[in-house]
Amino acid sequence: MPHYDAPVRDMQFILHDFLAIENYSNLAGFSEVSRDLVNQILEQGGKFASEVLHPLNSVGDREGCTRHDDASVTTPTGFPDAYRQLVESGFQMLGAPEEMGGQNLPNVLHTAWSEMVSSANMAFGMYPGLTHGAFQALMAAGSDEQKALYGPKMASGEWAGTMNLTEPHCGTDLGLLKTKAAANGDGSYSITGQKIWISGGEHDLTDNIIHLVLARTEGAPEGVKGISLFVVPKFIVREDGSLGERNGVSCGGLEEKMGIHGNATCVMNYDGAQGWLVGEENKGLKNMFVMMNEARLGVGLQGLSQAEIARQNAAGFANDRLQGRSLTGAKNPDGPADPIIVHPDVRRMLMDTRAIVEGARAFCYWVALQGDFEHRSEDEKIREKAGDYMALMTPVVKAFLTDRGLKACIDSMQVLGGSGFTREWGLEQYVRDVRITLIYEGTNGIQALDLVGRKLAANGGRAIFTFFAEIDDYVSAHDGNAELAPFIDGLASAKAQLKQATDWLMENGMSNFDNAGAASHDYLQLFGLTALAYMWAQMAEIALQQAGSGDPFYEDKLVTGRYFVDRILPEAASHLAKVRAGADSMMALDAERFG
Amino acid sequence: MPHYDAPVRDMQFILHDFLAIENYSNLAGFSEVSRDLVNQILEQGGKFASEVLHPLNSVGDREGCTRHDDASVTTPTGFPDAYRQLVESGFQMLGAPEEMGGQNLPNVLHTAWSEMVSSANMAFGMYPGLTHGAFQALMAAGSDEQKALYGPKMASGEWAGTMNLTEPHCGTDLGLLKTKAAANGDGSYSITGQKIWISGGEHDLTDNIIHLVLARTEGAPEGVKGISLFVVPKFIVREDGSLGERNGVSCGGLEEKMGIHGNATCVMNYDGAQGWLVGEENKGLKNMFVMMNEARLGVGLQGLSQAEIARQNAAGFANDRLQGRSLTGAKNPDGPADPIIVHPDVRRMLMDTRAIVEGARAFCYWVALQGDFEHRSEDEKIREKAGDYMALMTPVVKAFLTDRGLKACIDSMQVLGGSGFTREWGLEQYVRDVRITLIYEGTNGIQALDLVGRKLAANGGRAIFTFFAEIDDYVSAHDGNAELAPFIDGLASAKAQLKQATDWLMENGMSNFDNAGAASHDYLQLFGLTALAYMWAQMAEIALQQAGSGDPFYEDKLVTGRYFVDRILPEAASHLAKVRAGADSMMALDAERFG
Repeated sequence: MPHYDAPVRDMQFILHDFLAIENYSNLAGFSEVSRDLVNQILEQGGKFASEVLHPLNSVGDREGCTRHDDASVTTPTGFPDAYRQLVESGFQMLGAPEEMGGQNLPNVLHTAWSEMVSSANMAFGMYPGLTHGAFQALMAAGSDEQKALYGPKMASGEWAGTMNLTEPHCGTDLGLLKTKAAANGDGSYSITGQKIWISGGEHDLTDNIIHLVLARTEGAPEGVKGISLFVVPKFIVREDGSLGERNGVSCGGLEEKMGIHGNATCVMNYDGAQGWLVGEENKGLKNMFVMMNEARLGVGLQGLSQAEIARQNAAGFANDRLQGRSLTGAKNPDGPADPIIVHPDVRRMLMDTRAIVEGARAFCYWVALQGDFEHRSEDEKIREKAGDYMALMTPVVKAFLTDRGLKACIDSMQVLGGSGFTREWGLEQYVRDVRITLIYEGTNGIQALDLVGRKLAANGGRAIFTFFAEIDDYVSAHDGNAELAPFIDGLASAKAQLKQATDWLMENGMSNFDNAGAASHDYLQLFGLTALAYMWAQMAEIALQQAGSGDPFYEDKLVTGRYFVDRILPEAASHLAKVRAGADSMMALDAERFG
Repeated sequence: MPHYDAPVRDMQFILHDFLAIENYSNLAGFSEVSRDLVNQILEQGGKFASEVLHPLNSVGDREGCTRHDDASVTTPTGFPDAYRQLVESGFQMLGAPEEMGGQNLPNVLHTAWSEMVSSANMAFGMYPGLTHGAFQALMAAGSDEQKALYGPKMASGEWAGTMNLTEPHCGTDLGLLKTKAAANGDGSYSITGQKIWISGGEHDLTDNIIHLVLARTEGAPEGVKGISLFVVPKFIVREDGSLGERNGVSCGGLEEKMGIHGNATCVMNYDGAQGWLVGEENKGLKNMFVMMNEARLGVGLQGLSQAEIARQNAAGFANDRLQGRSLTGAKNPDGPADPIIVHPDVRRMLMDTRAIVEGARAFCYWVALQGDFEHRSEDEKIREKAGDYMALMTPVVKAFLTDRGLKACIDSMQVLGGSGFTREWGLEQYVRDVRITLIYEGTNGIQALDLVGRKLAANGGRAIFTFFAEIDDYVSAHDGNAELAPFIDGLASAKAQLKQATDWLMENGMSNFDNAGAASHDYLQLFGLTALAYMWAQMAEIALQQAGSGDPFYEDKLVTGRYFVDRILPEAASHLAKVRAGADSMMALDAERFG
């Protein structure tokens, strides 16, 4: 019953009209980017997502994964075959370096592909998604030997990858982790401990699974300064690349979860498993953070992806379901009733979701392009600015897009009324699936703390000041453009409020850190709204230039952007008021008085 | 693993300190209300909810209901026994008239009991809850004979009741309903048609189920003016009260749903079932609305109830889970980490929920007391005002408390991080269960439309103007009270914004009904915030009077109220801004451009 059609037109608009990625042909990997190539990727990728992955989305939800007595895990019916097709398609390698067998295309294209995979089947998409993250971490921190041994097969997806951080007593606070790594004397280590909530920890999709594991070497310092990163393959990989013996790592159980049932969430037992240090000893957290940052952007994209498929299905239902009459006179007078899309409150939910989805997509891809600049530009200034933006925006993409993604799924479900609550229409699954995105890879509260406690202050506030200056310049440059004025005014107002919130934090967050913590959630929301206002202003500018083209896409873009400014951006003021409320009433109760 | 402790202390505060129900001993049924009796009900009721109903909450979720080949339905393990105990306890009859075997106690006490039942096990609580609603409708519209035949056993819960409105092609738009009622010539009718989403339509809890069914008699007018209400018992009841033959109504299937798995949501097939007209022909909708209004208040209470149990379990986790250190220095220096309740963003979610729960409870019970005034006062003025308030507040209680209840469950789940997403901690079940409350008994969008389209304008706006005047009087009376000032200022500001929104609606909603529809959701939210601000001001006033008592309950109340004013009430401004944004950008897109 549910359907998914890749939003190819909107992706084309963002890549070509908004980001104009063809303009960066001087960057490595961009020279081959033509409209034709991009369109081919979007259309074929979209077809693959709709036809191969999406039909398995409800199957995965209903069947879930199964752990057998021998500790093996099977994924839902159809998953192994779809995964094989995914590897064969080559899409997974779009952005991988050529020496790893990839095409070295811009990461922003991989982002578009990932969005489609995740919309079509989020639980499935986590297998290649985490593999991609593990691959990136290994590329960043691994030795040449490790890159050669694991890289090409992880790049293609022939082998899967995982990240192993959480233990029963610690998730956020990794300083407490206990898993041990004892040197074997031959350059390898013997890893022992238990990891939990390991997505894709064990499954039947690939011949091998390459685990990246955080553990402590003997005599390592306590806390986060004594954590090292290890690569622990499920099957030992011989020097010639063939698979050797089964390693001492196994799945001890699967979690029963609210959603993403198609993904195996494993308890992983490491019983003297053989592993190899990745990067320097005691620098594991830094190296794992390469993967974490990649994963955080991917989680933000998941939030967007579920909002997109929820939006599509809600819009379809709203156009089909006949119920009641328009308040302003029948719109379907020959039928027994009007389609419910005539009702303003149904529109409100559809437009809220649409304005967020389109703004979030622009934001997400814009940030992905900063990643390309950071890694591929030869201009140090550009690399620095892009790196600053990536660091600053990562927590915003992760938390704002997932908070709004959940709201979008809830609103879309609401459009269907009672049907939304039943399994057959799919909407309730999107709500259950997207719910995890606010939690994993660092809860949204941790993202907010990362933003206010670390990212704002880094390099004397260089990143945020650069962003403010960029917005100010944009606003000045478009002063007096009457058609664009509502967008410019909205952006200027949001930015001014974000600036006030930033000033408040600087004045009050240093003297009492609880003020910073208390403000963090609302500060991040205000940041997200401002970032989307900036995206919308630029998109509106382009749409206005195309207003005479007769293409209704551009008219829709203007209406949707205007809705964002009229109906979503006003929330900025309440977030600023909450930031300024400080920590007093939040922290006043004694802990034991909760209960 | 999850627990539930009835919030007896807060209920006592609301009933005794805030509502002072002992002061109304002149009203029928109130004369026997003593502190002792109330405390006995709360404590014994709370014990029953915690010990009998709550242990079955996760059982019900996992097992769900089962329909057998003979169309019978069995409820989860333990439900029939718990239901039997519920009937034997007599709690169900607290508020029922004495001639029906009840105690005729105030409805506000039944509300407290219902909250506890619903917190402990919402899916279970729907069986007696809907029975209570059906009983009320029969009391209001049934003949003396019908009341005598069905009343006592429905009052006690020995027989269950249901409401049958929705059909496959119509839910909200009941004018389209097709179920037919053909006169049998003996005073009874033959009912034929299909109803869907019938909660508790078939089960194994009671010997008989009394269905209230909307259907059309032959030759009835089209639309809502041709709908009549019928009582259709599962087993025909003989004149002596004994059960006769099985009626032609059966369960055709169970819905697969996101939550409330312990409640049987049935497709009900009426195949010439024998039924009897309740009230006048073609006045069925009006008569059913007695039940609907009762049910809507009950649904608001469900929203509150799930927020309460979610809050308790989140607070417990936050005090136990050690992770990270306080930003302002270790609070548990001898342990490996501090409990996460030290982190401001965790507090934010706990305090948001607490401030909403306590404000919502006061609001809900206050409205329930208006119901008592409406039905029991001998003073016509009091009855009129109470009736106005009931009508005005019902959509607000239903929609605002369920919107906020869902948010509270989501936030509480978030406090648990990854554990929140797993089944064993219970939080994810509360989210899935509470989600239906935004949908059934009229979606929250319908509630908002009812508020702006019907309730505001009724009797020339008498109800809303009375409410405004009451708030103005309260604000004036407490002008200059320095300690209460933040609460009074917050209330005055919220009321002023609600007044502006009301004025905007009067100016713009009449000329373009889409403006009213477009504003409805945010208007209702603004109304809810204002109502809670009024509740909190009054509660703060009482707590200040008790400030010297040394009872920390009153200090907590002041802190929590202050949090509401500082951190939740600022949202009012964004709702007003959205109301004023009008319908233009919401309605501008052509319907076919959604997709």
